[in-house]
Amino acid sequence: MNEEKSKLDESRNQYEPKIPSILKNSFSRIVIKEGEKSASISDTEKIKEHFPRLYGMPFLEFIEGESNEEAEAKKVGVVLSGGQAPGGHNVIIGLFDGLRVIHPESQLYGFLGGPKGIFTEKYTQLSAGKIDSYRNTGGFDLIGSGRDKIETPEQLEASRAACAKLGLDALVIIGGDDSNTNAAVLAEYFLGTSQKTVVVGIPKTIDGDLRNERIEISFGFDTACKVYSELIGNICRDSASARKYWHFIKLMGRSASHVTLECALQNHPNIALIGEEVEEKNMTLQQIVEYVAGIVSKRAEAGKFFGVCLVPEGLIEFIPEIRKLISELNDILSEHDKYFRTIKLFSDQQEFVNQKLSRDSSYVFSTLPARIQQQLLYDRDSHGNVQVSKIETEKLIIEQVSELIAEWSAEGKINEKISEKFKTQSHFLGYEGRCSFPSNFDANYTYSLGRCAAVLIACGKTGYMASVTNLVSPAKQWQAGGVPLTSLMNMEVRKGREVPVIKKALVDIKGKPFQIFSEQRASWELEDKYVFPGAIQYFGPPEICDAPSKTIVLEREKPQSSGE
Amino acid sequence: MNEEKSKLDESRNQYEPKIPSILKNSFSRIVIKEGEKSASISDTEKIKEHFPRLYGMPFLEFIEGESNEEAEAKKVGVVLSGGQAPGGHNVIIGLFDGLRVIHPESQLYGFLGGPKGIFTEKYTQLSAGKIDSYRNTGGFDLIGSGRDKIETPEQLEASRAACAKLGLDALVIIGGDDSNTNAAVLAEYFLGTSQKTVVVGIPKTIDGDLRNERIEISFGFDTACKVYSELIGNICRDSASARKYWHFIKLMGRSASHVTLECALQNHPNIALIGEEVEEKNMTLQQIVEYVAGIVSKRAEAGKFFGVCLVPEGLIEFIPEIRKLISELNDILSEHDKYFRTIKLFSDQQEFVNQKLSRDSSYVFSTLPARIQQQLLYDRDSHGNVQVSKIETEKLIIEQVSELIAEWSAEGKINEKISEKFKTQSHFLGYEGRCSFPSNFDANYTYSLGRCAAVLIACGKTGYMASVTNLVSPAKQWQAGGVPLTSLMNMEVRKGREVPVIKKALVDIKGKPFQIFSEQRASWELEDKYVFPGAIQYFGPPEICDAPSKTIVLEREKPQSSGE
Repeated sequence: MNEEKSKLDESRNQYEPKIPSILKNSFSRIVIKEGEKSASISDTEKIKEHFPRLYGMPFLEFIEGESNEEAEAKKVGVVLSGGQAPGGHNVIIGLFDGLRVIHPESQLYGFLGGPKGIFTEKYTQLSAGKIDSYRNTGGFDLIGSGRDKIETPEQLEASRAACAKLGLDALVIIGGDDSNTNAAVLAEYFLGTSQKTVVVGIPKTIDGDLRNERIEISFGFDTACKVYSELIGNICRDSASARKYWHFIKLMGRSASHVTLECALQNHPNIALIGEEVEEKNMTLQQIVEYVAGIVSKRAEAGKFFGVCLVPEGLIEFIPEIRKLISELNDILSEHDKYFRTIKLFSDQQEFVNQKLSRDSSYVFSTLPARIQQQLLYDRDSHGNVQVSKIETEKLIIEQVSELIAEWSAEGKINEKISEKFKTQSHFLGYEGRCSFPSNFDANYTYSLGRCAAVLIACGKTGYMASVTNLVSPAKQWQAGGVPLTSLMNMEVRKGREVPVIKKALVDIKGKPFQIFSEQRASWELEDKYVFPGAIQYFGPPEICDAPSKTIVLEREKPQSSGE
Repeated sequence: MNEEKSKLDESRNQYEPKIPSILKNSFSRIVIKEGEKSASISDTEKIKEHFPRLYGMPFLEFIEGESNEEAEAKKVGVVLSGGQAPGGHNVIIGLFDGLRVIHPESQLYGFLGGPKGIFTEKYTQLSAGKIDSYRNTGGFDLIGSGRDKIETPEQLEASRAACAKLGLDALVIIGGDDSNTNAAVLAEYFLGTSQKTVVVGIPKTIDGDLRNERIEISFGFDTACKVYSELIGNICRDSASARKYWHFIKLMGRSASHVTLECALQNHPNIALIGEEVEEKNMTLQQIVEYVAGIVSKRAEAGKFFGVCLVPEGLIEFIPEIRKLISELNDILSEHDKYFRTIKLFSDQQEFVNQKLSRDSSYVFSTLPARIQQQLLYDRDSHGNVQVSKIETEKLIIEQVSELIAEWSAEGKINEKISEKFKTQSHFLGYEGRCSFPSNFDANYTYSLGRCAAVLIACGKTGYMASVTNLVSPAKQWQAGGVPLTSLMNMEVRKGREVPVIKKALVDIKGKPFQIFSEQRASWELEDKYVFPGAIQYFGPPEICDAPSKTIVLEREKPQSSGE
């Protein structure tokens, strides 16, 4: 190829990921220990009905010992599903290396462009030559990714046929909650059709919402948060230097606010809004705006006409009254789609919608700026639903806060200079972090996940998610094993019907990370306690280069004895 | 203080910047060698008239030898002016350390909040205790910055009085072209009023447009470009992984496109627009749009519905026809300000303006989207001028390219799928990079500039810019000296009158960096030759951690012999 590479890229290709000690053993020295039988999170009977063959399998742990399993060459397919997350390549490469360790004649195929690549039989065989320049790199460009799902009976059967044709012993699906739900569906289907291919899932998402006690974190979260925190730190410092702008920074993470919470813990911004708290406290948009405007005013009174506020991408969907409004709008607009399209004037559209909305939602709708109202009415997806992700939440907050401060100024509640001097900048940090070179943590973790999956495959385990745990300790002390996919599931309503899905892990507002944030945030509001993490480092002291994210450290910390 | 700091922050505080060998000598072993007498870039007579005392001073170089200068304790003031740039703190700290090396009783005062801090006498004395936690950090928060200038006779006199009252032997002004012009004005004024304070300038700006043969680069450019290139690389990788978005990335740099050019050389995006080329080739907005749409279409025909396009913040001002339009609008709107304010309807405003514009400008105005027209008519600064910086250039390009592709699709010139599949994301990278921890290069360079300024001060040199050169070699081989501020000047019209100013250094489209870019860019358009520089590294191999920016390496490279 002889393409130009950066020096760091070349150097990262040479990095040797650290792995749990257990995975350093030859395959004949790894024994799978079966733990307790698993159950689903809830809806036991229904999940069991959907997964009669998979349901109730035990948790697995790898331990050292004399294995009875025979090391055989395996043919394996791997696919990347959904949005990019740092470390995806290393999962594939860990899997590749792991399969070779087990048997040198193992083969790995990469399905191209996401799950669609399976049922349309688009794939490439991966060789050492092909993968070596992707070691420890970001991106999913080795085989691409996609958002298609394997859903219809035809797609399921086509996927089975593809695996059968290729003679695959295993299929590894690297994805988020939906993709891993899909992995379970496939595993069950393969068992039911006597297709030999085992299916193993890998927990991926920068949002950090695919995890539980046994899946400590999804990969990519660590790196993405570190990239965002580097930039937020820079912006905090800029804000405190120029002393004239409030920066509102929207962060990726639609369904959960883990990214925002982690960045808040890393950066100590003046304000960080956490969707789960908004929901728990049943806050209205107006209350959020009052909270932010209050801090802006307090700081201004202390001569500080600057600050930083973090906003999770999904904030608006956590506001109960807005969620209700959106749900009603979806119903109204789909029921009256045809007629609604004939209404030309925006004011007539407003009127029509207002008549149909409930009294509460109509009030909420009327308090939104016209631009947002228009977004809600126009930008609908192919199912006719409001596209909440397109709403510029950070700009909505800015607008509303500006107006409230202007009101307070005009009414003499605060100094009128405060309104004049409230100048803002908005940012959205998302794509900037999804394809970074993985941090050492993510490089090690993803490579280990791939190695772990190889062992599960060699032992013929299906319907499992590869699991590497004890992540706050050094890598050699990490443990490896498998978590039954059905143990992550509950029943939820999707597109109008109840289906088994992996439950998203939201920020637990009783958990340690939120508690620490909530104890400290008052002192961040007025004082400037910004922390500047700087860029991800790969070569320096371990406390700088190898530290995992604050969230998992706080979650896994042993409670300290409070005695003397 | 006991504030929480990041591990990297702590570690950077311990980093010892590398300095030129000459500056490692004791002051008694540094001799100032006078080189040739300087002249201004042009307008010799007029510059001489404005700077009768400063004009024509020689270039200075520090060499080893027995110095006749006596090492005396000096009282020095320092001020940060204008936008943040990585390394500002290190200039101050290098100056602090340098003055102490010369005489342990030297004192350094920091003027607060920019040049206004001088004439309003807001300052703080800097001590080792105060500065140590700022070593090698980003931001200007140690003493703040500001955009005020010292312009009126009253401000000049108040500044002199402040320096006199504090008994300052020297004043160091860290700033961009305007601030260094201001430094020259102050130096001349102090000489004329027998005020003993010497004035030394330091070249700062991430835009990279303050430099020439003897000022190889302004500080901050290296770090900021590295931060932007990290993120652009991540976005390129995201684009090539998801294969569904065109990312349009606007980069800071209003007056020159150095940042965009440097990032293009580092990242190899599919498209990078360079303002200076647009101007040189007298391109119209329509031509730029056709160029971009052409590449979008070509890639789409090759199945690539994705790409990355870099857009310099100041692009629009480089388009000759738009500059003409803006200039006419400024004239019209200031002449008819009162009447114009009475016109309420936008369509009437359009009509009024169109009647007054020249035929060409009227045509150009009419081709702009209404949103941009409104921005041009409404968003005016306190002088009544159009605020070009508020125009969202990247979004303007996206809109126009979308429209043109839709037109081509509809007319069958290109496949109609191309228009459907043209999906975009826009980004603006600016604040994310101005306050980063400086790269090793910038940490070394800025500290050396501070040390260099200390020597100029100890030798009583006024009206000079500290100069550290030979920057593509290892730091110990760097040279240090002084460049007369007037040698950077020419006459330009500002606010209607001709004044002496430091000339901005634009991208030289005959220079090596642009030439290399222009030779390679065709191969970046269709193929994906993205380079991923990754995050700034501080601890690894020198070729990763200490390399200066591509721009100065290419500019300073010795021409290679072409023989065998």
